[in-house]
Amino acid sequence: MKLWDKGIAIDKKMEQFTVGNDREIDLHIAPYDVIASRAHARMLAKINIISSEELKQLESGLDVIALQIEEGTFIIDDQFEDVHSKIEHELTLQLGEVGKKIHTARSRNDQVLVALQLYYKEALGQTRTSVKTLFDTLLDLAESHKDQLLPGYTHLQVAMPSSFGLWFSSYAELLVDDVYVLDATMRIVDQNPLGSAAGYGSSFPIDREFTTQEMGFATLKYNVVAAQLTRGKNERSIAASLSNVANTLSRFAMDICLYMSQNFGFISFPDELTTGSSIMPHKKNPDVFELIRGKCNKIQALQTEMLLITNNLPSGYHRDFQLLKENVIASFIELNDILEIFNYSIKKIIVKEIDLNDEKYQYLFTVDNINNLVVDGASFREAYKTIGEQVENGTYVPDTSKHHTHIGSIHNLGLDQIRNKFPD
Amino acid sequence: MKLWDKGIAIDKKMEQFTVGNDREIDLHIAPYDVIASRAHARMLAKINIISSEELKQLESGLDVIALQIEEGTFIIDDQFEDVHSKIEHELTLQLGEVGKKIHTARSRNDQVLVALQLYYKEALGQTRTSVKTLFDTLLDLAESHKDQLLPGYTHLQVAMPSSFGLWFSSYAELLVDDVYVLDATMRIVDQNPLGSAAGYGSSFPIDREFTTQEMGFATLKYNVVAAQLTRGKNERSIAASLSNVANTLSRFAMDICLYMSQNFGFISFPDELTTGSSIMPHKKNPDVFELIRGKCNKIQALQTEMLLITNNLPSGYHRDFQLLKENVIASFIELNDILEIFNYSIKKIIVKEIDLNDEKYQYLFTVDNINNLVVDGASFREAYKTIGEQVENGTYVPDTSKHHTHIGSIHNLGLDQIRNKFPD
Amino acid sequence: MKLWDKGIAIDKKMEQFTVGNDREIDLHIAPYDVIASRAHARMLAKINIISSEELKQLESGLDVIALQIEEGTFIIDDQFEDVHSKIEHELTLQLGEVGKKIHTARSRNDQVLVALQLYYKEALGQTRTSVKTLFDTLLDLAESHKDQLLPGYTHLQVAMPSSFGLWFSSYAELLVDDVYVLDATMRIVDQNPLGSAAGYGSSFPIDREFTTQEMGFATLKYNVVAAQLTRGKNERSIAASLSNVANTLSRFAMDICLYMSQNFGFISFPDELTTGSSIMPHKKNPDVFELIRGKCNKIQALQTEMLLITNNLPSGYHRDFQLLKENVIASFIELNDILEIFNYSIKKIIVKEIDLNDEKYQYLFTVDNINNLVVDGASFREAYKTIGEQVENGTYVPDTSKHHTHIGSIHNLGLDQIRNKFPD
Amino acid sequence: MKLWDKGIAIDKKMEQFTVGNDREIDLHIAPYDVIASRAHARMLAKINIISSEELKQLESGLDVIALQIEEGTFIIDDQFEDVHSKIEHELTLQLGEVGKKIHTARSRNDQVLVALQLYYKEALGQTRTSVKTLFDTLLDLAESHKDQLLPGYTHLQVAMPSSFGLWFSSYAELLVDDVYVLDATMRIVDQNPLGSAAGYGSSFPIDREFTTQEMGFATLKYNVVAAQLTRGKNERSIAASLSNVANTLSRFAMDICLYMSQNFGFISFPDELTTGSSIMPHKKNPDVFELIRGKCNKIQALQTEMLLITNNLPSGYHRDFQLLKENVIASFIELNDILEIFNYSIKKIIVKEIDLNDEKYQYLFTVDNINNLVVDGASFREAYKTIGEQVENGTYVPDTSKHHTHIGSIHNLGLDQIRNKFPD
Repeated sequence: MKLWDKGIAIDKKMEQFTVGNDREIDLHIAPYDVIASRAHARMLAKINIISSEELKQLESGLDVIALQIEEGTFIIDDQFEDVHSKIEHELTLQLGEVGKKIHTARSRNDQVLVALQLYYKEALGQTRTSVKTLFDTLLDLAESHKDQLLPGYTHLQVAMPSSFGLWFSSYAELLVDDVYVLDATMRIVDQNPLGSAAGYGSSFPIDREFTTQEMGFATLKYNVVAAQLTRGKNERSIAASLSNVANTLSRFAMDICLYMSQNFGFISFPDELTTGSSIMPHKKNPDVFELIRGKCNKIQALQTEMLLITNNLPSGYHRDFQLLKENVIASFIELNDILEIFNYSIKKIIVKEIDLNDEKYQYLFTVDNINNLVVDGASFREAYKTIGEQVENGTYVPDTSKHHTHIGSIHNLGLDQIRNKFPD
Repeated sequence: MKLWDKGIAIDKKMEQFTVGNDREIDLHIAPYDVIASRAHARMLAKINIISSEELKQLESGLDVIALQIEEGTFIIDDQFEDVHSKIEHELTLQLGEVGKKIHTARSRNDQVLVALQLYYKEALGQTRTSVKTLFDTLLDLAESHKDQLLPGYTHLQVAMPSSFGLWFSSYAELLVDDVYVLDATMRIVDQNPLGSAAGYGSSFPIDREFTTQEMGFATLKYNVVAAQLTRGKNERSIAASLSNVANTLSRFAMDICLYMSQNFGFISFPDELTTGSSIMPHKKNPDVFELIRGKCNKIQALQTEMLLITNNLPSGYHRDFQLLKENVIASFIELNDILEIFNYSIKKIIVKEIDLNDEKYQYLFTVDNINNLVVDGASFREAYKTIGEQVENGTYVPDTSKHHTHIGSIHNLGLDQIRNKFPD
Repeated sequence: MKLWDKGIAIDKKMEQFTVGNDREIDLHIAPYDVIASRAHARMLAKINIISSEELKQLESGLDVIALQIEEGTFIIDDQFEDVHSKIEHELTLQLGEVGKKIHTARSRNDQVLVALQLYYKEALGQTRTSVKTLFDTLLDLAESHKDQLLPGYTHLQVAMPSSFGLWFSSYAELLVDDVYVLDATMRIVDQNPLGSAAGYGSSFPIDREFTTQEMGFATLKYNVVAAQLTRGKNERSIAASLSNVANTLSRFAMDICLYMSQNFGFISFPDELTTGSSIMPHKKNPDVFELIRGKCNKIQALQTEMLLITNNLPSGYHRDFQLLKENVIASFIELNDILEIFNYSIKKIIVKEIDLNDEKYQYLFTVDNINNLVVDGASFREAYKTIGEQVENGTYVPDTSKHHTHIGSIHNLGLDQIRNKFPD
Repeated sequence: MKLWDKGIAIDKKMEQFTVGNDREIDLHIAPYDVIASRAHARMLAKINIISSEELKQLESGLDVIALQIEEGTFIIDDQFEDVHSKIEHELTLQLGEVGKKIHTARSRNDQVLVALQLYYKEALGQTRTSVKTLFDTLLDLAESHKDQLLPGYTHLQVAMPSSFGLWFSSYAELLVDDVYVLDATMRIVDQNPLGSAAGYGSSFPIDREFTTQEMGFATLKYNVVAAQLTRGKNERSIAASLSNVANTLSRFAMDICLYMSQNFGFISFPDELTTGSSIMPHKKNPDVFELIRGKCNKIQALQTEMLLITNNLPSGYHRDFQLLKENVIASFIELNDILEIFNYSIKKIIVKEIDLNDEKYQYLFTVDNINNLVVDGASFREAYKTIGEQVENGTYVPDTSKHHTHIGSIHNLGLDQIRNKFPD
């Protein structure tokens, strides 16, 4: 049995090889090609390449297509290699000669670029919104659980007292950093590439500022060669910014899986969020958070893919760039699912009562004891030595009475300050 | 012969293994430990943990160390594992009991974190300055060479006319995107972690806003657990942002190496910037730009290293984090060298006269010919067909007269607009 | 418009999230689950856990399923999360109580592992066969084109004479190295994990040597904990070995794209293997080879994905491992397509006549001139200096008469020796 | 203060930039350049390019250099860019005209390649030996601790009984897989590239089989273009194979760090192998194993670096390749240190008594209970249900009496079989 030979003829294979699954992927960017085509048509009318009558026809043709897309009846059939040729063909079918004019003063290259960037802008915005939702959830959880203590670890060794309030809000504050990078990426993709044509501009007197405004881009990628060079740069930037969010969630998920272990036993989840085993009837496994962790780690590999595809290629378009969009779009969707499911699941977390008097946690408070001696006049290094000797000879008695007052500490979480950090 | 056995005893090896080359690396962050220790001492005085007299002594002790560092006489000798223990020891040596008080209410963990972040801030700022210098150089080169045409390629095939003006300024405009991410990274590291101690704060009534102002941080990393979780996040963000700049330079260097090939012959460099061969007496190789390309590619691998070291580790400090700083600091230094040498070398570029009438460039102008037909009333698709037939049957005559008017095109580079994009 | 919100309820989303597209992927491993289930059933009969009558029933049940798979009528419907539960359910549906016995003494964990490893063995074998086909093609091309010279480059600068014979057979010889690693990977996956159950073995007196022989594994992964730890190791090894082949092809494709550029003009392909442009009627772009290059680069990113998913996880099964198979299977299929299309396309290559008397190639033969002087008694370094001066002052006259005699050189390609290197 | 400006002039910087730290790195490969130069000289005498008298002089010159290297007095001073020019210069200094003849019929390119490959062969061999030492240690530990039980985990949840015997020997068996890949890499680098010159061979009648035998290579890299293409391939293969070993050790180290946590408390180490904290006097941190984990993860990033530097470069030498050796050599040394320290430390492990009757481990034996019911005639699925109900309603009583008999299980570790798997 041949694993992959389905008896397909080579020329059919060649077509599949070059088209890939563009037809499927391109459904995601179809609405944005319509938006960009409309802006382009309006610009062509403004500079008198097409008449206002022709513009009216093109716009109504695009309306029809936009409606098909919205209703889910728009299909990129096998005769088309991508959404862009399909839309142009559709316009020609509807409008005859006029349809053929839409491609004046543009190239497939800038047509693809601008549609992708419009998609990326939308997707980045929605990612940011989902991050904000989780951020709010985590701050709420921190508030609700601010009085519940948790052992803090360094080197996976019991170290000093922490709390669920600290734990939940720590990941919230990290998400703020992730948003800084998401916003930088937004600035990168929010520059209109339309008009760069095949990467060397057009001899038509096109008005790029006009299309920039029409499509709501913040600015232009002025240089037409630069516009082409952003193929890959856009995608690497997106990958890096999704990767940041994924990293935060992945490490959070690791904590969750560890804390659910019977050896920690700090938290649990309702049965509907755990999974059984095919052979062990007692198992309630944290599959959801393991999959979050794993999928987030997968997203973090995207940067390497984007980099390897584009690295060391000379300037100017190469067909390799066609391969970039697939996993970028997939990662946007995946990360959004993760954010939604994380947000849904974390709300259901069951925080357990932890007995900090248990023997294994007995040294959690040594630093507080040291600090008492310091307040009484000892230098820190001497106090450290004294308590160390008590630990060594078994005379150490924990002081669990300390109240931490500084901002960002157990008893003063600074949740409002953290909340205010989230950029508008 | 044992490749690596130098007859060193295992306990010595163990020490080398745990200390690594921290003593050497830490010289880079020594000045920042002094700054942070000073701010910490002032804060301890402000909250009356130490007296104003003790503060005066600590400050003068730190002055001595700062001077040693500036004069290059500060050395981390073998008995110390890092700069932090060395500085504390130095203070104790100078000041006795008072020196031992400096470590009150802080931990090695936040001490390292804050020193690193101060270093990172400085280093990011200097990287940004070097990027700006190259940006200006490229715009100047674009201006000087704006009238010199260059074949434009897509798929490495001769496509449409480009120019040296477009080429130089394209990479300048890309650098603007790189600065967006550098600036986002600056926001991430510009948050004071001091006071997070071992990652769970302190029972002393420390004033973290005070140290934040003293050290000139824009804000605090409020949550003490979050502060520890930035180990790795800071470094991944820096790696990603240096990687962006490196990618821009690497692809530029690829163009340069290709254009220097006799088969392109578009540019050359003076002899002092090329290298000979050990066996071919005619060779003038672009080694400088190959090394720029290679070193930039190496910098792009840094993200993976940072990621692999920290990935899937639960929250809280782990000693693994000690390994992060080495290649981050090395990459800052490497990238700065690259930027300086790129800027120095690119100014010496010799732009050659390219004969666009050469047979291999004969179809550069087909799109301009098509556009003529479109202006005369044909639809784009028909005009495309007509010129295609001319190419096919050998009757095609290039129209090299076109003037491109739109912003960002050959004859209207928009250099001022690009210059204005560089963020303040 | 929400980009990704399809109005699906959260519990449905949760199910999709945990199942992923396992149902689709698992069709690839269905036949191997049948093989392994059959071996497991026979072993259960051998150790008298089931009767020979029960075995007969289970085997006939598995025959039915095997037939469905072969005929393409086997479907993993929505009620099943993967192929493994589907097959067990199918047996129970057919056979009642007997069907439920198949899962005795095994776990989902080793069931998945063994099916995957059987798939991997088959897929590695077929990859090796495809590599051999391309290897033979390249040696044939080297033989046919052995007399056609090609400029050789170092640093992308014209260096010394090369030939198409050398060029084709160089990539053939590299493929041999790739096979060494494919074969090492085969050894890694050719170790039976069945019987490791959930990673801690079974209290049943199972006979693991028997199943090893039944399934044709070369040996066992004896240690049951080790068997689980190969989750990820198998996949990293496969990724590394596919990546080697991909790297060879990717670099070959880069050469092809470069040599097709008008500035080199060394080769071309028939029209059916090139692609046009949406705006430039003269373009014949090497899209096939650009896509080969890009897809090969994508495959090279797989290692990072496998690594990031598994890195720093403690021993024992984690659900994250479920995510490994998708892109491993996809990469096998992709690489096989690439190999087939590369082999098909490279046979159609049109090798052009290259005029080595062209001015840009004038120094190709300097080393041969030097060697003449050496043969006449000069030291290499002096001869180098003499010819260098001739180049400098324009008196250099190439000696194009040299015949290279040593093995592996232009005129003595050693194709038979290379052919013999391919491991049996 | 400029972070990196040491007031060095640009031409000095340029030199540093191109030479890098080759002078330091090259000391590692100096002995191998001597070996290869000697073989090359003998071959030149054999084909009568030099006289037997000249050979004698060259050999005695090389003897002098070899002695300097062995005694540590060989230094690559600032006037030389690498070891290769230094050795050639040294010969000329000693021998006059004769010294200049050594570079006949070779190029810097194949000179570097062959020296590196000889180094790689030696280093791979020593790595393999160190792996074997650890392998033996682990099997010994497995034997000594075969009766000490350990809870087994899946999903980090308590699952089924495991043992220290299983745990130690699992990592031993994984090392066997790593050796398969080390051995494949050895085959890749064990092919003589000498004679490929600058990548296009030589017009001298050199005898490559002779040098192959002289240097003890298993075979030749016949094709001279292929020999150059192995730049990068050798290093990627090595990186992948070191990465495998590193991955095994990294995951093992993760287990160790986790098991040392008070929440597991399965193992400990003597004080000299743990590290204290600057503020917590009770801490005994597993720094050695955290550093092993971190350094192993760093080694696993090497592949990406090797790949990014070489990816998408056309065939023929590029100066970028010079950058490959630094971190390959560093990784060999690092991994060897890790193996030595791992082996030294793991022998000192203290295995603790684990109370499997502790409440948190109460369901470790459910599968054994199920199996009892199966032996009594129930189908597995029914037995699973029965025990599951007992767990649910609190009537479950563990059966801790089971003896696992199959190969690779707790009570039948198969250590001899694993020992025999290690390839000769």
